Amino acid sequence: MGRWEPDAAGRLREAAMALYTERGFEGTTVAEIADRAGVTARTFFRHFTDKREVLFAGSEELEQCMVAALAGAPPSAGPMDAIAAALLTAGELFADRRDYSRRRQAVIAATPELRERELIKMASLATAFADALQQRGVGPAVASLAAETGVAVFRVAFERWVTEPGDAKLADVMRATLADLAGLTTH
Amino acid sequence: MGRWEPDAAGRLREAAMALYTERGFEGTTVAEIADRAGVTARTFFRHFTDKREVLFAGSEELEQCMVAALAGAPPSAGPMDAIAAALLTAGELFADRRDYSRRRQAVIAATPELRERELIKMASLATAFADALQQRGVGPAVASLAAETGVAVFRVAFERWVTEPGDAKLADVMRATLADLAGLTTH
Repeated sequence: MGRWEPDAAGRLREAAMALYTERGFEGTTVAEIADRAGVTARTFFRHFTDKREVLFAGSEELEQCMVAALAGAPPSAGPMDAIAAALLTAGELFADRRDYSRRRQAVIAATPELRERELIKMASLATAFADALQQRGVGPAVASLAAETGVAVFRVAFERWVTEPGDAKLADVMRATLADLAGLTTH
Repeated sequence: MGRWEPDAAGRLREAAMALYTERGFEGTTVAEIADRAGVTARTFFRHFTDKREVLFAGSEELEQCMVAALAGAPPSAGPMDAIAAALLTAGELFADRRDYSRRRQAVIAATPELRERELIKMASLATAFADALQQRGVGPAVASLAAETGVAVFRVAFERWVTEPGDAKLADVMRATLADLAGLTTH
């Protein structure tokens, strides 16, 4: 990235989100995004492979951070406590990205292709959780169950966080959702 | 369906599964499926919209049966008990379809396009569960959580059932997975 384009990726992301919200994801072209960000299409493609990637760049880092937190939980922590550590880490990472997350979620909800991509991302996260739990010595069946359940909590908490009014912290919504889960399964 | 083609749909399904297993989903054409089933391509298209549909026909009935069981649970049943009723109904429906389910799962696992379709089907099931729980008076946040968790149990139990040796009944694997979930969340 040349120094004449400070934070081109950030400006491209902002421009893309504004256009997706105004015209819809399908009605927006890469040329328009680059134009609004004040860069060339060539610069766009130095940062993102396509217009969908703008919304999903960072997914891998998020997954890696969550898996690292899961793996780093104390050896005495049970599967769901290790999962909780991963979810709370995501809560920290998103702490000041609520407005962006809210707009992103609205664009994704409105576009079938993006909803599918999001489902694939969540399935990948569940697989990564299950692998990390197995490396902690959890049996495969329970590891899969804890992983899938953890992703369910993640999705529901994230959805609550972006749709509910007020300014609750994502980490707190994750904690409340984990508590709801415990309440649901013990009655 | 004319009487000169008894159970054409069943024969098409069997022929498709055999070919998908032998040649892969992508390497199989509708003409080949029809040929193996001893019918014309025109007959194929009277039963299925495309070769993917062969694997997913019945998904809507499954969802409807599960939702009906959920809705029909006693008014005193909590959200997870109502979800359990839905899962056990699926267990009954699949009771004698283990061999078919096993082959189907292998084909889906081997084909990204089909894995995506399966994820979409599961997301649809979660939405249907959440709606049905809300109609039972469960608040939206808890309804979503119970629904997503229920689908996680369904997926994990189904995967166990098709991959584990032995001849456990799906309904029993569903019960065991629900018990595992309760154990996971109360420690």
